[in-house]
Amino acid sequence: MRDVAGLAINQATTRPQWSLAQAIDGYARAGVRGIGVWPDKLAEYGLAAARRHLRDAGMAVTSYCVGEMIVDRHGRPQPAERNRQLLDEAAEIQAQCMVCVLGGLPAGSRDMARARECARDGLAELLPRARAAGVPLAIEPIHPMRAADVSCVNSLAQANELCAALGEGVGVVVDAYHVWWDPDLAAGVRRAGNRILSFQICDWLSPTVSLANDRGMMGDGVIDLRAMRALVRAAGFAGPCEVEIMSERDWWRRDADEVVATCRDRFLSLL
Amino acid sequence: MRDVAGLAINQATTRPQWSLAQAIDGYARAGVRGIGVWPDKLAEYGLAAARRHLRDAGMAVTSYCVGEMIVDRHGRPQPAERNRQLLDEAAEIQAQCMVCVLGGLPAGSRDMARARECARDGLAELLPRARAAGVPLAIEPIHPMRAADVSCVNSLAQANELCAALGEGVGVVVDAYHVWWDPDLAAGVRRAGNRILSFQICDWLSPTVSLANDRGMMGDGVIDLRAMRALVRAAGFAGPCEVEIMSERDWWRRDADEVVATCRDRFLSLL
Repeated sequence: MRDVAGLAINQATTRPQWSLAQAIDGYARAGVRGIGVWPDKLAEYGLAAARRHLRDAGMAVTSYCVGEMIVDRHGRPQPAERNRQLLDEAAEIQAQCMVCVLGGLPAGSRDMARARECARDGLAELLPRARAAGVPLAIEPIHPMRAADVSCVNSLAQANELCAALGEGVGVVVDAYHVWWDPDLAAGVRRAGNRILSFQICDWLSPTVSLANDRGMMGDGVIDLRAMRALVRAAGFAGPCEVEIMSERDWWRRDADEVVATCRDRFLSLL
Repeated sequence: MRDVAGLAINQATTRPQWSLAQAIDGYARAGVRGIGVWPDKLAEYGLAAARRHLRDAGMAVTSYCVGEMIVDRHGRPQPAERNRQLLDEAAEIQAQCMVCVLGGLPAGSRDMARARECARDGLAELLPRARAAGVPLAIEPIHPMRAADVSCVNSLAQANELCAALGEGVGVVVDAYHVWWDPDLAAGVRRAGNRILSFQICDWLSPTVSLANDRGMMGDGVIDLRAMRALVRAAGFAGPCEVEIMSERDWWRRDADEVVATCRDRFLSLL
């Protein structure tokens, strides 16, 4: 099948259906040449085998997606060594960036300002290694509904300020799902400019029934994805659109080849 | 019972348990002297009876809470006459402000910028009547997770800009639930200053299980309410803390007198 230039798929989209090996093959079958990879799936496959498979399939790793970077889901501090190891893995599979989802409030804390300082300090600590490895850190602003438990970085403005404070080797992810509502979106994307390392797409369903894993397929919700893609491009980002759809009620229940074909069709018709 | 100075309760907190008449009596039994009133509950009671009861109980109406002001929950435009009538009701019960929740995207639209323009224009249209009636319009920024279906105004910064554009007779609601995550909260509250017409409190539960009606009692979640109250006071707001807890899984299932007593106890111990 012909390559779908400009389309990548994050393997979270087919998380329950496919292993990393199956995702590489399945995406390639549909002509997709970029994949977003998750650490647990990589560990399951093995680093050497994954690297070989990705290379043989001609599949670019458009993101390596690390969550709970500063505190874990229980609000416990992460050991710095864990993030250094993940960075080494990102370098091994030649990931174009390491997506950093920073974690929410530490256990028992109500101090968001302090959580945000810790997030900045944790990134600063990891940064020399990221620069040496040639893997940029991509700060992902997460929707405010997950501020307590997933990330204390909740707007593009915040991510841009972190970039300005931290300097070279740090950029941002623009994930349509997290930022579509932002009244300052256009200004935030313009300011991010060549700091944009990843553009992720899906749709916001209305109504949305769960705070977790209820994302929609492009075209099924309310986000003006074509306009957002134009914004991101005008800001200077020339990379692919990476589809990332976690969907417990719908797409995670379907045949994965059908999911991938739908991503492809919607991308071609809507973006 | 002694008055609880500085505490009001929004009747949404006891919505399934109590009519307006019951809420006035129940809150008064606990020494609470301020109530937030909803239009459907007022209509059920009747305007004249409600006005008399409120006066006899010495109960101040700290807010009259109007949703779906520009578009309804189906995204259909609201007739301007409906909002004028609600404003007259607010004046009749001597509400200290009319809380304006503006509505989300019009049906079939993905254009948030346009929705926001319509919201501004709708407020501007209503404003002369509000000024004449002596009822200030209190713009309520709503959490971004409800941007599509409840309100396209999703930050204090946006509400402040609307105030600046519209002039006298318009202010803001600071509802802890909607704005606690905002990285610019302190600046937004300071800027709002004497535009703050209402301060609403509850807590953000972690995890939160539903986008609608899953609010927590003060102290059960992650919001630093004491710090937020200090911010609001420092900005110049001298009015009460109005508790507003919509809670399908917990507080709406309890005896309403217990709910009110808990609001009182938590307010006294935590704020």
